[in-house]
Order: sequence, then C-alpha cells, then structure tokens
Amino acid sequence: MATVTLVSDAEAEADPRVRAIFADIRATRGSDFINNFWRGLAHDPALLERTWTSLKAVMGPGTLDPLTKELVYIAVSIANGCPYCIHSHTAAARAKGLTSAQHGEFLAVVGMANQTNALVTGMQIPVDSAFQVGKSP
Amino acid sequence: MATVTLVSDAEAEADPRVRAIFADIRATRGSDFINNFWRGLAHDPALLERTWTSLKAVMGPGTLDPLTKELVYIAVSIANGCPYCIHSHTAAARAKGLTSAQHGEFLAVVGMANQTNALVTGMQIPVDSAFQVGKSP
Amino acid sequence: MATVTLVSDAEAEADPRVRAIFADIRATRGSDFINNFWRGLAHDPALLERTWTSLKAVMGPGTLDPLTKELVYIAVSIANGCPYCIHSHTAAARAKGLTSAQHGEFLAVVGMANQTNALVTGMQIPVDSAFQVGKSP
Amino acid sequence: MATVTLVSDAEAEADPRVRAIFADIRATRGSDFINNFWRGLAHDPALLERTWTSLKAVMGPGTLDPLTKELVYIAVSIANGCPYCIHSHTAAARAKGLTSAQHGEFLAVVGMANQTNALVTGMQIPVDSAFQVGKSP
Amino acid sequence: MATVTLVSDAEAEADPRVRAIFADIRATRGSDFINNFWRGLAHDPALLERTWTSLKAVMGPGTLDPLTKELVYIAVSIANGCPYCIHSHTAAARAKGLTSAQHGEFLAVVGMANQTNALVTGMQIPVDSAFQVGKSP
Amino acid sequence: MATVTLVSDAEAEADPRVRAIFADIRATRGSDFINNFWRGLAHDPALLERTWTSLKAVMGPGTLDPLTKELVYIAVSIANGCPYCIHSHTAAARAKGLTSAQHGEFLAVVGMANQTNALVTGMQIPVDSAFQVGKSP
Repeated sequence: MATVTLVSDAEAEADPRVRAIFADIRATRGSDFINNFWRGLAHDPALLERTWTSLKAVMGPGTLDPLTKELVYIAVSIANGCPYCIHSHTAAARAKGLTSAQHGEFLAVVGMANQTNALVTGMQIPVDSAFQVGKSP
Repeated sequence: MATVTLVSDAEAEADPRVRAIFADIRATRGSDFINNFWRGLAHDPALLERTWTSLKAVMGPGTLDPLTKELVYIAVSIANGCPYCIHSHTAAARAKGLTSAQHGEFLAVVGMANQTNALVTGMQIPVDSAFQVGKSP
Repeated sequence: MATVTLVSDAEAEADPRVRAIFADIRATRGSDFINNFWRGLAHDPALLERTWTSLKAVMGPGTLDPLTKELVYIAVSIANGCPYCIHSHTAAARAKGLTSAQHGEFLAVVGMANQTNALVTGMQIPVDSAFQVGKSP
Repeated sequence: MATVTLVSDAEAEADPRVRAIFADIRATRGSDFINNFWRGLAHDPALLERTWTSLKAVMGPGTLDPLTKELVYIAVSIANGCPYCIHSHTAAARAKGLTSAQHGEFLAVVGMANQTNALVTGMQIPVDSAFQVGKSP
Repeated sequence: MATVTLVSDAEAEADPRVRAIFADIRATRGSDFINNFWRGLAHDPALLERTWTSLKAVMGPGTLDPLTKELVYIAVSIANGCPYCIHSHTAAARAKGLTSAQHGEFLAVVGMANQTNALVTGMQIPVDSAFQVGKSP
Repeated sequence: MATVTLVSDAEAEADPRVRAIFADIRATRGSDFINNFWRGLAHDPALLERTWTSLKAVMGPGTLDPLTKELVYIAVSIANGCPYCIHSHTAAARAKGLTSAQHGEFLAVVGMANQTNALVTGMQIPVDSAFQVGKSP
C-alpha cells in the first residue's frame, strides 16, 4: 500500500541517473540491498539524487558519532510519527551497535522530552533570559 | 505571558514538597538557579515531584552519554515546536560541551530526518521486511 | 505580529456578513469583547461565518459537559503547539470553572499521553485485537 | 481496524440526514462510490452534514484552482501523518490531472519545507521585520 | 511488526521487577489481560516501572472524572497520530461509559480544535491581553 | 531570542563559502536583503550551501507554478507550527501575486484538511482499496 509504485532493479537500469545512485548506495553500504524508500524516490531522478547526496553527506563522518546521529534521526521520526523511518533507522542504529539497554534508555529520554514539551507548552512558560544566546542584529 | 504564574522562592518555601524538590534541583545541579519550568509546575506539587524525579533518573548516568541524551531531547523539542524546550536544552547541551560545529551537524541531521520523514510519508512507503524485528505474539 | 491585519469594529460594520457574525458572537457570549481570532478571520466573510457557525454548534449544549470540551480543545492545542489557542481556551476553561488543581491534573494527563504516545510509537507496538472495534466492510 | 464501524448503504437509508448527504456526495461527484471516511462519520449525522457541507464549499470553485487545493490538502496530511488522507487526496489529485513529474516536484517542496521548518525551529530564528504584515490593534 | 519483541508471561516471570509490575497491572485492572504496550516496555524494567507508576497515579482518582481524562488522552493521541494509543484509549473510554453520541461529539470538538488551531497559526494571531494570566517574575 | 547568533555581512565576508552563497542569494532574488534564516545557517557553511542549493532547485522553474509551491510550503509550515516560516513564505506568496481572497481560500483549505485529518485519525478509518496505487514488489 503506497501512493507510488516501487521502482525495480530492471526499471532503475533504464535511467542513467537512477542507475548511478543505486550503484552508489550499494557501494557506500557494501550491500546489494536497496530499501523501499529509494525505490519510491526513483520516480524523480533529480529528487533521488539530491536526497541521497545530502543524506550521505549529513550521515557521513563528522564531529558527532554515527550512533548519536541515528538516535537523533529516530527521535525526530518518532515525533513525526513515521513508522517506516522508525523501523529503518532503528535497524540502522542496531547495526551500528545500539544495545537493548541503550534502546530502552533512548526511549525513556524521548518519552520524557515529549512529556515535558507538553507541560511547558500547556503552561506557555516564558524562556528564562539565561537560556537566550543569540539576539537579533 | 503564560497560562500560570511562576512560583517564587518565597511561595515555594510554604509547601514542604515544593521546598524539597527545589532544594534537590539546586543540589543536583550545583547552582542556585531554578528555571521557569519548575516554577510553573510547582502549582501542582505531585506533578512537580513526579516530573523532577523521572527527569533526574532518565537524564542521569546510564548507557548513553549525557550529550547524546541532550541532543535527542532537543531533536524531539524541535519536532514538537517547543521554543522553551529548545532554548533550555540547547543551553544544557552547550554546558555539556556541544561545540558550534557539532550543533551545525546536529541541525543538519534533524533537518534531513524531517525531510525524509515527509518524503516517506507522502509516498506511504511500505516497511521492508528486513527492518521488522518484533512480531506480535 | 501576524500575517493579516485585525479587522476593527468600524471595518466590520462595512460588511453585512461580518457585522451579523460579530453581533451573534456578542449576543451568544453576552459580552462586547471580540477576540483577535475573529478579527483576523473577518477578511474572508464566508470563512468567518462557517467557522463561527460550526464552533457554536460543536461547543454548544450536547452530551458532553462544557468544561470537558474545553479541556479536549486545550489538549489538541497543546499537541499542535498553538500558543494563541492554549491561552484563549485555558481562559475559557477557567471561566467555566476549571480550578487550579484540575488544571494541574489535566496537564499531568496531557504530559502522560504525550509520553506514552512516544514510547508506543518508538516501539511500533501492534494494536491488540481486543482494542479493535470496527472492521472494513 | 478502526474505532467505529463503517455505515453500510442499508444503514444509511434508515436515517434521513445520512441518506440525503450520501445522495449529495454521489450527485456532486457523479459516482456511486462512497469512501470509508463518510461511512465512519455517518454515526453522527450532524457531524457528517457539517463536514460534507463545509468540504463541498471549501473545495468547490473559487480563486484557487482545484489541483492546487488538493496539493495543499496532501501537504497538510503528510505533515499530520494521516495515511488515509494522503491516499485519498493523492488519488483525487491524480483524478484532477496531477502528473508523475508534478507529484515528484510536489514531494520535493514538501520535503524541503519540513527540512527548513526544522532548521528554523532549531535555531529559533527571529522573524525579520520585513515579513511582518499585521500588527495588534 | 514492531521494533522490539513483546515480552511473554514466561519471560516476565524471570525478572522480579517486571513480574511485580505485571501483577500490579492485573490487580489494579481486575483482569488477567496485559496489553502489548506493557509487553514492549518490559525490556527495560526501570522504564516499565516508572511509566506504570506514573500512569496509575495520573489516571487514578482526582479532581477530574475518569472519562474526561480518557477523552483528553485520546485527543492528544489523535493529534500525535498514534494508532495504538487511539485504539486502546477509545476502548478504555467505552469501558468507562462513553456512548456513541458522546464519541461523535468528542470527535467534532477534536476536529474543530484542529481546524481553528490551523487558522490561528496560519494568520499568526497575537494573543489578546485578556487571555494572559501569568507574567514573568 | 535565538539559539545561535545571526551572521553579519562583515562576518560573512570572512568565509569564502558563506560569501559566495550570500552573493548567489542576492543575485537570484535581485535584492540586497538577506533574511535571518540564512544568517543563522551561515555558522555551518556546508549546511548553508546544501540548503540554499536544494531550495533554489526545488523552488525554481518546474512543472508546478511558483505560487502553488509557496502555498504548499506555507501549508507544511502551519502544520509544523513554525512562525518564522509562515511569515516568510506568506510574504513570498504575496510577492508572487497571492491576493487576499486567495489567502482566505487557502486558509480555509488548510483548516479543512486539519479537521478531516483529525476525524479520520480519531476513527482510524481503513484506506479504501480504490485509493491504493502502489504495491510492494
């Protein structure tokens, strides 16, 4: 059940841009598996290309460790209620070493954040001046 | 501007439960500063107590490092659009060592997650069976 | 700060539909006060009319008591992060008798719901068959 | 799986208001098909009537073209994470001429908006005075 | 389909904290049935314990009636798009006496709140000073 | 009030990537004005560059008209509750010809979508098979 069909490997071969991105996904991940997200996006080669290129840059080596980035990704996906994203990034986090104990602790933080977000919003608490960093020019 | 008043130190002194929690917040943080969130919650001593006790447990020592937890907290707060929460936990993350470069990288992950969440949701992509861990009993 | 101007009483007089709705709001509430929301909507008399008529029907006498309806309204407004809506409906709930103790208990329920929503979503818990009422035809 | 049953044509015949609305839906759309949403709402004839009447007015002829309205509808449905709404309005948009290329471009805009929304919210950027149109009276 | 397995009764017996909480859920509800949510949480005994203890306190006797609390819980769950939560708390509300007419009226309030939230947010209506209760200290 | 400072023109001059992007924003828009969003992002030149490049491609000429794209952008921003985004893209839509009547009609569609999204979600309506386009491979 989806609003688009999922592009098969045979269809991907027919478009040079899709073929190149699928090949780069496989090479980057060291796996032949292309998950459904990319097969849906492949209907729009420019969007596929832009999304993969950005994702690869953002989730690649940097100043935050890879597991932290996955946890941030899952936290956003939970708040947005995206089942696919939660499943795929939880699998990715496990592949990067997330233990069951860490997963429970992560869920506790996400639950706590949602709870206090709601309490703050319900009370419309004004921001303490101590927390304000930037000012308008 | 708020939907409740903010409980002053003098008012806090008048309720033993509020007094005890305010004292524990100060002792735990090693600072005399009590931010507005707790001053709003203090109208309901039971809620104040439960929230602080849970938060202290969840954000305390565990299997994830403190900065990672703050980033997860901010990610949720951004997705929920809670200005107070974003300000207070970004300040907390900075106090725990978040650099400007890490903050930028974190924002990039949050932005990317929101983008791909929307793309997945718009296409209603079915979850790959490879990502499914648990099954109903 | 807004994306539309707020229609003054003098401007409202100039459009028969806006004049009639403003008069009905005043008569229904027994107060001369017209809050900013209606002044913003008045740029589109059809939208103003439709919104007021629906709101009056939905929030009017029925099978749920008026205070319960206001609490449901605030709960949605908190989840959607709408400061104006939270302020106006918390004021309305207070006018309908909401006590400070009830407000605290209400916030606790809202906070709890947001927390468990996030936990459920993060774990992607399948719905127990015991909870399923309706089936597709 | 639903929290209400779906009202059948036979059941709809038994209530004059439901019968009239179902007839109007069929006449307006020139099709015998009544989708599940209306069958769920039909348990509350007043709500069914109010919702259909408003939807017919809002989505009917006006100053925006019908396809633009459907795209706005889908964009909201994606942000709210409503699978039914995304499926039904994407089907409606296709029936109004949405091409596959336009769908891809639309998804790219939705993805971009979600990304920059998150970046802005994470940085808590103050609104430029150039963007402020209305002022409080 | 889930991101965790669901803990069986046999597995629950093996951990004293999980066993105690499962026993308390059964005793409190007067039913042998443990729904999937608690079986998912049971992987993290501390989180299970904290969540159940808080939920029991928050949803227990207080100044708001039990059905009102369930409706607030469902309203939040709808706004957050949590199918499991909507199903389980709608079932709970029905068990506490929610009639079909009340359910329809409740849905109408939730729908109306979401509509006016969006209108207010789209117009960025400033909060009337009459609605402002608390001020920063 | 923000979580980052806003980069001034003088600071922008000091980084070649920021300088180039600011110059391209000015050239593309034919205006010297750089709004606060880009000044916040400029702390992370790579993120600034990626975001501007993608935005320029997505919002540039394509198969959807520019005003439709702005309306989709605002719809998402309303659903996400991003005041800055609503202000800036409503201003952009006005600059592209959005009339007051169209703005009202647009808001009515957004309000209607949020309302029916909530009704559908509250009833957990199953997707009609007629609306299902894509299938898993």
